[in-house]
Amino acid sequence: MHTLHLALIHHPVVNKRGEIISSAVTNLDLHDISRLARTYGTGSFFVVTPLQDQQRLVKRLIDHWIRGAGGSYNPKRKQALEGISVRSSLEEVQAELSAGHTDGAGLLTIATSARRHRRSIDHDRLRQWIRQERPCLLMLGTAWGLANSVLEQADHVLEPIKGGSDYNHLSVRSAAAIILDRLSRLDSLVTK
Amino acid sequence: MHTLHLALIHHPVVNKRGEIISSAVTNLDLHDISRLARTYGTGSFFVVTPLQDQQRLVKRLIDHWIRGAGGSYNPKRKQALEGISVRSSLEEVQAELSAGHTDGAGLLTIATSARRHRRSIDHDRLRQWIRQERPCLLMLGTAWGLANSVLEQADHVLEPIKGGSDYNHLSVRSAAAIILDRLSRLDSLVTK
Repeated sequence: MHTLHLALIHHPVVNKRGEIISSAVTNLDLHDISRLARTYGTGSFFVVTPLQDQQRLVKRLIDHWIRGAGGSYNPKRKQALEGISVRSSLEEVQAELSAGHTDGAGLLTIATSARRHRRSIDHDRLRQWIRQERPCLLMLGTAWGLANSVLEQADHVLEPIKGGSDYNHLSVRSAAAIILDRLSRLDSLVTK
Repeated sequence: MHTLHLALIHHPVVNKRGEIISSAVTNLDLHDISRLARTYGTGSFFVVTPLQDQQRLVKRLIDHWIRGAGGSYNPKRKQALEGISVRSSLEEVQAELSAGHTDGAGLLTIATSARRHRRSIDHDRLRQWIRQERPCLLMLGTAWGLANSVLEQADHVLEPIKGGSDYNHLSVRSAAAIILDRLSRLDSLVTK
């Protein structure tokens, strides 16, 4: 899945009241999602926040686990966290990825949401693009999810995760785990 | 999946050096796994720790989200966390579940591990028992994983999660998400 890139987005996202905010970085998001990215062999993992103190926080965390005491205490954690890149905006990430994939088809941007969108695609569709090594950016929202502007500007929106109940309030960590596992599995997977 | 019960185990688990310890409870484990349990409609979710201060901590957390300020701030979180039961030992959990399922076949205990075990079963096998409404207890280890005694005493050990790379150091939160999603999907799922 090396042409599937991940972006964990802290701005623009919405709060409980639907207002646009910049959310704070959650340490365990970085640990969990970087370990998932390593496990499933994805491309880059971008942590996106415009807030400079939050960028410093992420860099300090990574530094602890790569060069500091954490790296020798737990080399497996180091292997995962060294895959993280901190960026100020989604535009920066997209420009960087587009520049890196100049041959062939352009970058596809895929937003995620807990709600069905009129342009929702299923996991099988995205899996096919990944198999074709089409460069894709999967955008994961923190807080109460990605701002509408991100959903509208994305090329596609991935269908929400359903577990058979009417409850769909998973953490971004759980959603990332489930999406990557589904994308890594057989094309012929038929959902219930 | 109402006959599939979950136990998040803090003792007996091992530390980095393979020694038996009682690990500390991680707040986000409770949030993430209780939300997963609610999403996939599992049976009970037990948090197992013999340490009384840790039991108090878990109860205080649950109380905040069910009866305290958290419950009115975020009712969806309340719905998830009210599914948590705190117990002192795995024996207590097993006795309770066995007593609750007196008709038909007995409780099957399924341990999880990041390493393949000589008695490993695949997700399809476990999915079949769940479809047959066979009562099952899925045991998830914190820290560096379940103690060998738990693996040896379990009826079965679930195969490790592979993502196509040689790296398999997922958090217990990510593992729980992936396992529940796999178990909820079609029986005919064929892995690569």
